[in-house]
Amino acid sequence: MLHSDEYIFGMRAVIEALNGGREIDRILVKKDLTGELAGELFEAIRSRSVYSQRVPIEKLNRITRKNHQGVIAILSPVSYANLDNLVPEIFESGRVPFIVVLDGITDVRNFGAIARTCECAGVDAIVIPERNSVSINADAVKTSAGALLHIPVARVKNLTSALRMLKASGLTVVGVTEKAVDDYTKADLSVPTALVMGAEDTGIASDNIRECDALAAIPMFGKINSLNVSVAAGIVIYEVVRQRQANV
Amino acid sequence: MLHSDEYIFGMRAVIEALNGGREIDRILVKKDLTGELAGELFEAIRSRSVYSQRVPIEKLNRITRKNHQGVIAILSPVSYANLDNLVPEIFESGRVPFIVVLDGITDVRNFGAIARTCECAGVDAIVIPERNSVSINADAVKTSAGALLHIPVARVKNLTSALRMLKASGLTVVGVTEKAVDDYTKADLSVPTALVMGAEDTGIASDNIRECDALAAIPMFGKINSLNVSVAAGIVIYEVVRQRQANV
Repeated sequence: MLHSDEYIFGMRAVIEALNGGREIDRILVKKDLTGELAGELFEAIRSRSVYSQRVPIEKLNRITRKNHQGVIAILSPVSYANLDNLVPEIFESGRVPFIVVLDGITDVRNFGAIARTCECAGVDAIVIPERNSVSINADAVKTSAGALLHIPVARVKNLTSALRMLKASGLTVVGVTEKAVDDYTKADLSVPTALVMGAEDTGIASDNIRECDALAAIPMFGKINSLNVSVAAGIVIYEVVRQRQANV
Repeated sequence: MLHSDEYIFGMRAVIEALNGGREIDRILVKKDLTGELAGELFEAIRSRSVYSQRVPIEKLNRITRKNHQGVIAILSPVSYANLDNLVPEIFESGRVPFIVVLDGITDVRNFGAIARTCECAGVDAIVIPERNSVSINADAVKTSAGALLHIPVARVKNLTSALRMLKASGLTVVGVTEKAVDDYTKADLSVPTALVMGAEDTGIASDNIRECDALAAIPMFGKINSLNVSVAAGIVIYEVVRQRQANV
């Protein structure tokens, strides 16, 4: 259940939130919404590049019984960063960029734990896709132990394009997957790095695997051969730290 | 709520389960239980060294409304290992012992994730105390992705004594704590090692810190300075793996 301060409803209110620059996680729009104000709403959504979803009216009614007029904006407790600005800023600050890209992580607890690890390890930013990802809501902030209020998160329309952009900016894209031949400790992680972690069940999407400069596996010595994704992320993130500390 | 196949109730049934060698997590006994069979029950509990707790009758009634006669045995889905036998067995098998000791980890999800990591990393055994620890129930087995059915778990009456025994057996006891001066990557983890992890809030108990041969910290570069314990365990467990692989 969403708390009433986590969303805004009604045409005018949502349009104003959009035009006023409020941080919005996503906008839920009734499937067959039409009318004069609807055009204004869609224009505001487009101009802010906010993610919107068409949903059955029942979904909106489950969030509030008040007069939502077919539109609810889910607010975001965090400010999203713009990836295009972020990478040059990291380079300019003199740091060796270290970005963690999460492909299809939908479990809030895992996402929160990964964000927490990233903040502790000094990761520069987390990149997630708009679709097929967690909502960064109050629960996510809580399980991250507040890390999400400190570390920049960039939400991108297309993760594959984002990986291409990161490569073009001089980062090495390393995908962590059990399908890799090489051990993650063999990868050179002291260079500018974007680490890609996939969902536990499906792994990194094949389109995104193709964009990786290197693939790295965590070696397994038991029978179950499957780590929790937040643990796997922690292991490789701290290997980046270890290699960079060793290089100092 | 416990499922009916997760416990046994009634004097005779519990005594038979004890004498028949069933794996029992703990026995709940009504506070003022007396009578002829009670003597026999206590004798069976003593001879099997099973952990028992005196509880108000309401606690038993919440588990079952059937005629429990003041005693319920909570069954364990896993077989506990005996630490005294385990360590010599590991040495005899030619492996370099690697034991993970959990001091006060009470969250089932964290415990399950740590067990899962241990199984994947080839850890020889997990040691937990009888008190102030998780119950290894069906939930723990599930969150461990089944790892708890593969990796030996030893439950000990006294963790401090267990650490002394491990040291006497030739293991180096390394406590992971943010209070340590040295980075965990600086510790020599290629030798026979017992890694001690503490609870997120309280850390390793001071009695147990005193038994550590070395203390190791995971370096922090952010503002929140606190990793999830299952992530922290994963980072150091895989550093042990890395050092041992590098030595091959």
